[in-house]
Amino acid sequence: WARAVRGLLLDISGVLYDSGGDGGVPIAGSVDAVRRIKASGLKLRFCTNETQATREKFVKKLQGMGFDISVAEVTAPAPAACRILKEHSLRPHLLVHNDLVPEFAEIDKANPNCVVIGDAAENFTYANLNEAFRLLVGMEKPVLISLGRGRYYKETDGLKLDVGAYMKALEYACDVQAEVVGKPAKTFFESALAEMGVPPQQAIMIGDDIENDVGGAQQCGMRALQVRTGKYRSVHTLHPALRGKREIN
Amino acid sequence: WARAVRGLLLDISGVLYDSGGDGGVPIAGSVDAVRRIKASGLKLRFCTNETQATREKFVKKLQGMGFDISVAEVTAPAPAACRILKEHSLRPHLLVHNDLVPEFAEIDKANPNCVVIGDAAENFTYANLNEAFRLLVGMEKPVLISLGRGRYYKETDGLKLDVGAYMKALEYACDVQAEVVGKPAKTFFESALAEMGVPPQQAIMIGDDIENDVGGAQQCGMRALQVRTGKYRSVHTLHPALRGKREIN
Repeated sequence: WARAVRGLLLDISGVLYDSGGDGGVPIAGSVDAVRRIKASGLKLRFCTNETQATREKFVKKLQGMGFDISVAEVTAPAPAACRILKEHSLRPHLLVHNDLVPEFAEIDKANPNCVVIGDAAENFTYANLNEAFRLLVGMEKPVLISLGRGRYYKETDGLKLDVGAYMKALEYACDVQAEVVGKPAKTFFESALAEMGVPPQQAIMIGDDIENDVGGAQQCGMRALQVRTGKYRSVHTLHPALRGKREIN
Repeated sequence: WARAVRGLLLDISGVLYDSGGDGGVPIAGSVDAVRRIKASGLKLRFCTNETQATREKFVKKLQGMGFDISVAEVTAPAPAACRILKEHSLRPHLLVHNDLVPEFAEIDKANPNCVVIGDAAENFTYANLNEAFRLLVGMEKPVLISLGRGRYYKETDGLKLDVGAYMKALEYACDVQAEVVGKPAKTFFESALAEMGVPPQQAIMIGDDIENDVGGAQQCGMRALQVRTGKYRSVHTLHPALRGKREIN
């Protein structure tokens, strides 16, 4: 089927580099892989749930590691969330990483009527979680928007709980269901495909997350490839519903 | 049916007093109510999910507020958890409030093979949650024991996320289901009833939590009464499955 492939979607963290407090380190061979994909004529889109920095800052870091990447090539949750906020006249309380806040610069945040949660990392304090909870529980109809639903990810100093875990905590406490922006949401993959101009049948998603990358892409009609770097653990090959590797073997 | 009642189970926080950083304040009339219940000849048991302090410390605080209460009258999750840990040779990593740690003094905690989570309050830090998560995800068969599954509770300075929210975060991240010790677990109510020597049909649970108090007691064959203090909110009268007030009207 290789001849029918016209585009690749690449996850970043765990595929191109391992993130960490020190900025992270590239995964062996990945800088060269991106260069060769681009040279091959395949369309390429970076499709990330990264919400610890603005796209500008994040891309600059990757460029510093030697990656051929630009902001215009990146599909990320924050801009998708901003579109939803504007469409529905929502004014968010942000529980996100400090470095992501500039992505919401143009959004009215006075007198919040919803909560947006991202991978807030050190901002996931007891006090901040209580504050987000109180705002939600005080709303007549609580609206929780989550920038992804990842369970955990790997940094250079070990595994960390991802936004999905904290989303579940707030969902349970407030008895609401979050609207997930980012992988594995179908709309997120669809907008990445539209930006590439490639139909799902002719695209392959490459990621380390069996649910967000592989599962999300498959639900969208794409094929998917799970790498064995990043958060990959051998138990994933036993996932009851999702099979990244067999799909492409 | 009042003549058939031989025993009362009383929740404490939200029924007898509102907790808080300042130690909390008694709810109007509750000191007198406990005195009158005891004078009436009804059997009385305090049934709490309180895990922010040892029973000794907690009871001393309540006595200081004027309540007629002793440690021997209190059913609480930590001793129940200790019984399970001993029975199954489990060595816990504790994610609990500092003041609860002495309840686990006799438990071997070296080289942990399970995680016990309680209402850790300020100990619910990003670092501590990541540590508990890493231990669980590193176990061949993760065991998570939760001292309750409450969603939130009320302190004098506002609503706070309870242990159940953080339990859900770890459950989701590790793809495990916690074993809940404390309300609403059936075994917890059953041991309180056994300690009173009263069958469920002759006992009434009084609490502010529609699920943990009312729901748990009803599942155990008891009747239940929901007070309008503590975390009570009028929306609870619309709960699809549980009806505390109608039950006793």
